[in-house]
Amino acid sequence: MLRADIDWLQSADSMMTRLRESQPLIQCLTNTVTTNVVANAILAVGASPAMVDLPGEAGILARSAGAVLINLGTPAPDHREAMLEAAFAAHDAGTPWVLDPVAVGSLPVRTELARRLLDLRPTLIRGNASEIRALAGHGGGGKGVDAADAVDEARFAAGELAQATGAVVAVSGPVDLITDGQEVVRIDNGVPLFTRITGAGCALGGVMAAFLAVGEAPLTSAVVSATVYAVAGERALARADRPGSFAVALLDCLSSIDADTVIDRGRLS
Amino acid sequence: MLRADIDWLQSADSMMTRLRESQPLIQCLTNTVTTNVVANAILAVGASPAMVDLPGEAGILARSAGAVLINLGTPAPDHREAMLEAAFAAHDAGTPWVLDPVAVGSLPVRTELARRLLDLRPTLIRGNASEIRALAGHGGGGKGVDAADAVDEARFAAGELAQATGAVVAVSGPVDLITDGQEVVRIDNGVPLFTRITGAGCALGGVMAAFLAVGEAPLTSAVVSATVYAVAGERALARADRPGSFAVALLDCLSSIDADTVIDRGRLS
Amino acid sequence: MLRADIDWLQSADSMMTRLRESQPLIQCLTNTVTTNVVANAILAVGASPAMVDLPGEAGILARSAGAVLINLGTPAPDHREAMLEAAFAAHDAGTPWVLDPVAVGSLPVRTELARRLLDLRPTLIRGNASEIRALAGHGGGGKGVDAADAVDEARFAAGELAQATGAVVAVSGPVDLITDGQEVVRIDNGVPLFTRITGAGCALGGVMAAFLAVGEAPLTSAVVSATVYAVAGERALARADRPGSFAVALLDCLSSIDADTVIDRGRLS
Repeated sequence: MLRADIDWLQSADSMMTRLRESQPLIQCLTNTVTTNVVANAILAVGASPAMVDLPGEAGILARSAGAVLINLGTPAPDHREAMLEAAFAAHDAGTPWVLDPVAVGSLPVRTELARRLLDLRPTLIRGNASEIRALAGHGGGGKGVDAADAVDEARFAAGELAQATGAVVAVSGPVDLITDGQEVVRIDNGVPLFTRITGAGCALGGVMAAFLAVGEAPLTSAVVSATVYAVAGERALARADRPGSFAVALLDCLSSIDADTVIDRGRLS
Repeated sequence: MLRADIDWLQSADSMMTRLRESQPLIQCLTNTVTTNVVANAILAVGASPAMVDLPGEAGILARSAGAVLINLGTPAPDHREAMLEAAFAAHDAGTPWVLDPVAVGSLPVRTELARRLLDLRPTLIRGNASEIRALAGHGGGGKGVDAADAVDEARFAAGELAQATGAVVAVSGPVDLITDGQEVVRIDNGVPLFTRITGAGCALGGVMAAFLAVGEAPLTSAVVSATVYAVAGERALARADRPGSFAVALLDCLSSIDADTVIDRGRLS
Repeated sequence: MLRADIDWLQSADSMMTRLRESQPLIQCLTNTVTTNVVANAILAVGASPAMVDLPGEAGILARSAGAVLINLGTPAPDHREAMLEAAFAAHDAGTPWVLDPVAVGSLPVRTELARRLLDLRPTLIRGNASEIRALAGHGGGGKGVDAADAVDEARFAAGELAQATGAVVAVSGPVDLITDGQEVVRIDNGVPLFTRITGAGCALGGVMAAFLAVGEAPLTSAVVSATVYAVAGERALARADRPGSFAVALLDCLSSIDADTVIDRGRLS
């Protein structure tokens, strides 16, 4: 274990405990494909999801929620309006919020929406390499929702995006890369099956939002939550190596994992 | 076993048999988070779900369906129109229908919608304690979809709501409380994991709608279906104590449970 | 094994290998009930689903996708516009596309939409017997999404529909019947539990779209993909005979099945 691990994960135990005890409300404006997966992942780590994505309600809840997740997977017109409303309210009220820019760069409606949302200062941006590069103004996106570029190649774009927006930026893929524009943390717990079930990335966005509600610094929170998720994924993979049963085991492991395991198994650098 | 148990559950066997044999069509206008869970729960108890929630179609089907479920979890504008259309048609045609007032009281759009739907006389209203209190005009709702108030504190509100609307009212939580405004039945088969998977409450609403289609008196139907669901949950919990595998086991147990087990394990008072 | 089996399934091995290696992007415009199931089934057979159903984006992606699935389960107004846009673009660009006409014939909005989509020349139409009969202009649909007529009774309607539209037509049910208007292939691997989980038919539509992206003749592709799906279902049923665990096992088996098993177990005539 590197010295670096101990530093980043030293608050994992207290964060996980606080999350399970306080059960913060995590408001999600997410896509219609993986809503259920996102809600169950948030529940599994101990928080309370509330999928409130109506104009006229989204902004109200965003003021009092513990954190907000905005995922651009299937942004229908009403949802776009509700997302802007929620992001504005979150920004105004100081509620931390996560932007998950699904397929931004390759499809125009969501790309335009993402640009408007960036002005409302997400606390954390989580995407795959091609999405992060596109948001930062590099490259033209990958093929749909799959990462076409290697995570490491997105390191520069992630740093630029973090500096330009003030957000912590997390690049997901075979490894995770998390940066605030100054420090860069790499998590080497790759779980290949994450790409063979739908919603693994979306659920990570939800878990990251849940941990943001606990109140640590966003960079620490992002590193801890991504490590919890990756280590839970490894544990699930040890139980089930096919996608149907892996998805079930992932929820089980997210709910049962303890901080010692996270600290012991997390491979940070 | 109390004498009361025998009375309320005496028709469980014939109801479960009729449901599995007749496979009534249960129309659902439900939320985008748990649609899949609701459909699978309805299938597991033997009925046929049809998620028809378009204006121009919802009213047509509601006239011929065995029962209708209207769940306010994510009521987009089109869905609101379709819900009113379906409730109007159900009321007009005598189709029994269930209202699940998710997060009513804490969010304005659905609260207004729920008031309009109450005028169309739901057969059964199923919610958590804070939702039922809010519908009855007490309190201001809980934190999102979680029950903030104890079930027993909602007993008075549930009775008032039942008397004012003519509906049977079911309050879900660590215990279930079901009333028609005169008789009150309490089901003590609490399943803690129900709060740690998404859609457990929504699925109960679907199962209650399925049993309403069999044609017993609504109060009997509500008590039997809630007991079937709670006992199936207890059986599932005996097999799986983590949320991913519990959700799978719940569907398995809903499909395999028999009336003897329901009568034997149901704790009614 | 009949000689016929060998002919139809002789390319199964190369098709399954190419699908898993090339991971084609399968664009889905599908319903809100089973989106997750469809996406996971497409992933399990090796392809990459992208649920892109917004007007302004749907047509763009349909030009470059490997194949497109259009499922009419819950066609909200925006989705209807996006479906027409995607079908037009797919037709124009030569992208193969699948029409899944859920509940057409019994509900008016989708029936009208299906007629407009037929003009845009689906490569493959997959439905149950009553949906296929309704599309062909026979009968008035069944009760919702369930097949009310026997598959064999729909043979004539399927042939007519194939000849009128140029599409391959697949009738799903206790047996599968696939025709291009001249040849008729019957697959006798019935899996009763397919009717007791939500999305089994929708997922088959997704799997059929995935195989179309590999580039064999549509009739061959339809027969191979339907056989893969049915045999995977039989394997899943051997592991799990209740709906919750069966749905999990189905995904596992779709991901693990090999061509030898498909050829060995497929009962074609």
